[in-house]
Amino acid sequence: MELFNYFRSSASYRVRIALALKGLDYDYRSVHLARNEQFDPAYASASVSRLVPLLRDGDALVSQSMAIIEYLDETHPEPALLPPDALGRARVRALAQDIACEIHPLNNLRVLRYLSKELGMDEDNKNRWYRHWVESGLAVVEQRLAGMSGAFCHGDTPGLADCLLVPQIFNAQRFDCRLDHVPTVMRVFEHCMTLDAFAKTQPSACPDAE
Amino acid sequence: MELFNYFRSSASYRVRIALALKGLDYDYRSVHLARNEQFDPAYASASVSRLVPLLRDGDALVSQSMAIIEYLDETHPEPALLPPDALGRARVRALAQDIACEIHPLNNLRVLRYLSKELGMDEDNKNRWYRHWVESGLAVVEQRLAGMSGAFCHGDTPGLADCLLVPQIFNAQRFDCRLDHVPTVMRVFEHCMTLDAFAKTQPSACPDAE
Repeated sequence: MELFNYFRSSASYRVRIALALKGLDYDYRSVHLARNEQFDPAYASASVSRLVPLLRDGDALVSQSMAIIEYLDETHPEPALLPPDALGRARVRALAQDIACEIHPLNNLRVLRYLSKELGMDEDNKNRWYRHWVESGLAVVEQRLAGMSGAFCHGDTPGLADCLLVPQIFNAQRFDCRLDHVPTVMRVFEHCMTLDAFAKTQPSACPDAE
Repeated sequence: MELFNYFRSSASYRVRIALALKGLDYDYRSVHLARNEQFDPAYASASVSRLVPLLRDGDALVSQSMAIIEYLDETHPEPALLPPDALGRARVRALAQDIACEIHPLNNLRVLRYLSKELGMDEDNKNRWYRHWVESGLAVVEQRLAGMSGAFCHGDTPGLADCLLVPQIFNAQRFDCRLDHVPTVMRVFEHCMTLDAFAKTQPSACPDAE
């Protein structure tokens, strides 16, 4: 397998964690977003959206990080990244989507670029925007996790929701977001980071890290 | 089952379509977002995020539209809304996420409110912002669909991706977005609208429509 990704892309990091949790080998293909390598013809011919991550598995190309992780979970079932029961699966998917649909899309690189370059938003307002969605979005995740007794987002094994949560916290820290209002989130985050699958795939450990 | 939703919420419409495709009965509970009913204590006690849709199934509460649709597909398997093969499932989920993660989050009501009320963005720039993400996002979906021969997003039966696509086109039309660059998308949309499951659940047909 080949993973087209970028060290700083949190959607890429989600998939690196999932691959590591499953112990799957892959070739790391760097697509340097800050240098606009996603628009190179070589990448554009594989990626319709020019987004990362993109997984190549034999002849198949799979896009969208959550779809890639579910694909890996279906094609390499052990260890499972989703619970066995429909309600547990719904809870984990909803948690993942609380991050992937409510927080991250508002704060990715192309959106921040559009705000500053096309709409002339200044740095202060851009940072307010960023922090607003991270801090309010994580407050929702906190409420969902609070009262759960597991070490991870769902029970005592890492799964899909943890693959989404950890990269979001890296982004939050990079942009100096407030995190003292989400103690359960941070407990799960810190527990995840004790595992190699999360620690060895983090942005600073990637081959294209700067 | 009870569906907490709002006629104009496109995420709500996704779930109404899925329930209709499966022929499932439910009680329609209106949460009028424009009147801020999502902040009423009665709803806040059920919904951590104050977002719609929210499905109540017995004692269970399921949030996030894609998670709800997959939950319905697992608990009521016929007719299936996802293909049987892992690669087909990945393709359909990625298409759904092209809409749910790349287009819709940038344009929902709370985001538009934040842009105008908190950041002082004027109406013209807000409309540019809206159209930019819809038009560029649908261009990606168009490329993914072009060359496929099916009547729907994936083959000749409606599924998860169609549940996401149709409400996004309703939004695009409401905001006068350009659609002439996405002919395959529009062919699928128009075919979907010949089916009762899509037509009878559309915003204007809802009990709380204005």
